[in-house]
Amino acid sequence: MLISELVRRADVPLATVKFYIREGMLPPGRTTSATRADYDELHLERLRLIRSLTIVAGLPLSRAKRILDIVDQPEGSLYRMLGMAIDALANSQPADPDSDRRYPRAEAALAALGPAYNASDERMTAFAQLDSALLAVEEVGMPVDAARLRLYGDHVMAIARTEMDGMPAGDPRAAVQYAVLGTALYEPVLAAIRRLAHQNLAVDV
Amino acid sequence: MLISELVRRADVPLATVKFYIREGMLPPGRTTSATRADYDELHLERLRLIRSLTIVAGLPLSRAKRILDIVDQPEGSLYRMLGMAIDALANSQPADPDSDRRYPRAEAALAALGPAYNASDERMTAFAQLDSALLAVEEVGMPVDAARLRLYGDHVMAIARTEMDGMPAGDPRAAVQYAVLGTALYEPVLAAIRRLAHQNLAVDV
Repeated sequence: MLISELVRRADVPLATVKFYIREGMLPPGRTTSATRADYDELHLERLRLIRSLTIVAGLPLSRAKRILDIVDQPEGSLYRMLGMAIDALANSQPADPDSDRRYPRAEAALAALGPAYNASDERMTAFAQLDSALLAVEEVGMPVDAARLRLYGDHVMAIARTEMDGMPAGDPRAAVQYAVLGTALYEPVLAAIRRLAHQNLAVDV
Repeated sequence: MLISELVRRADVPLATVKFYIREGMLPPGRTTSATRADYDELHLERLRLIRSLTIVAGLPLSRAKRILDIVDQPEGSLYRMLGMAIDALANSQPADPDSDRRYPRAEAALAALGPAYNASDERMTAFAQLDSALLAVEEVGMPVDAARLRLYGDHVMAIARTEMDGMPAGDPRAAVQYAVLGTALYEPVLAAIRRLAHQNLAVDV
């Protein structure tokens, strides 16, 4: 298809498409004449993926690029790649494994979260994120107590198990793409459902 | 306290504190001499709140300001204020009540989400967010089916009920602050726990 059709079908402005090509996030089309290039369904798919990461998941371009790099060139264990993706998703700096920084709130939370979270340690990037999220709610006078943490942990683990069960078997590349994108893209779905739940409950207040 | 102590205790750079004062997000200190002003615990609390919204919840300044405005000047029902806060949290444009735009994915999702979500309609801002989040996962070939939606809906509603139960009774201003900030600031806690859950599950893959 021509770039004009790609633009229309992906609902992304022409200048943005050209920018993604310059940035190496989207491969250029196949040149068919001095002024024309041909694009295919893979370009459309890729463009939609970039749009999902940036617009829906709200990631800055630099972090969306890191997620794409992980999906494009999967290396190492799923555990390691998921960790890299979670680094890229974080607002905060990733945990520095050489630092002696401690995460007292996340450590205290582990007991409340229960045995399913036993593998957690401070080298996990989400560990630092949990610590800073808990600090933030504490500082505004709305701490999460142990009972609430346990409730969060149980419900969230049930969700996460179902999500991991949906991972495609057999094809490691597809598995990585599912796990990495799932962490990023199912999150807005869950956030929207939680906000909808709050609004439903507030109707009666 | 002097501004230097405020800066140290809130762990926010001096230039940023001055910027928040200029923007009207933080009230100026009480002037004690031509070059000095005095700050109190309320300034510290406010500064921590701004930091939580911007750094931890990752909100751009303009949206953090809208959340602060709602908390500062609560008007109308809790339902309405929560709606305004959810508008401010969204990456996307809020739903336009005069538009005839439809949300086919969110509408289809309602049946799967179950009776607890019965009050949902397209005037709820989270409804448009759910629609675009569902479109995004569909476009990257990872749609959420009805069984998964039902699971999400049940677990998330259980979480939301407990959150709403924790709302301070008696003081409407405190209730609004809890509900509005809770939607914004417990979200990073839940997101961190979900990422931790994924990493815990990936250890064994």
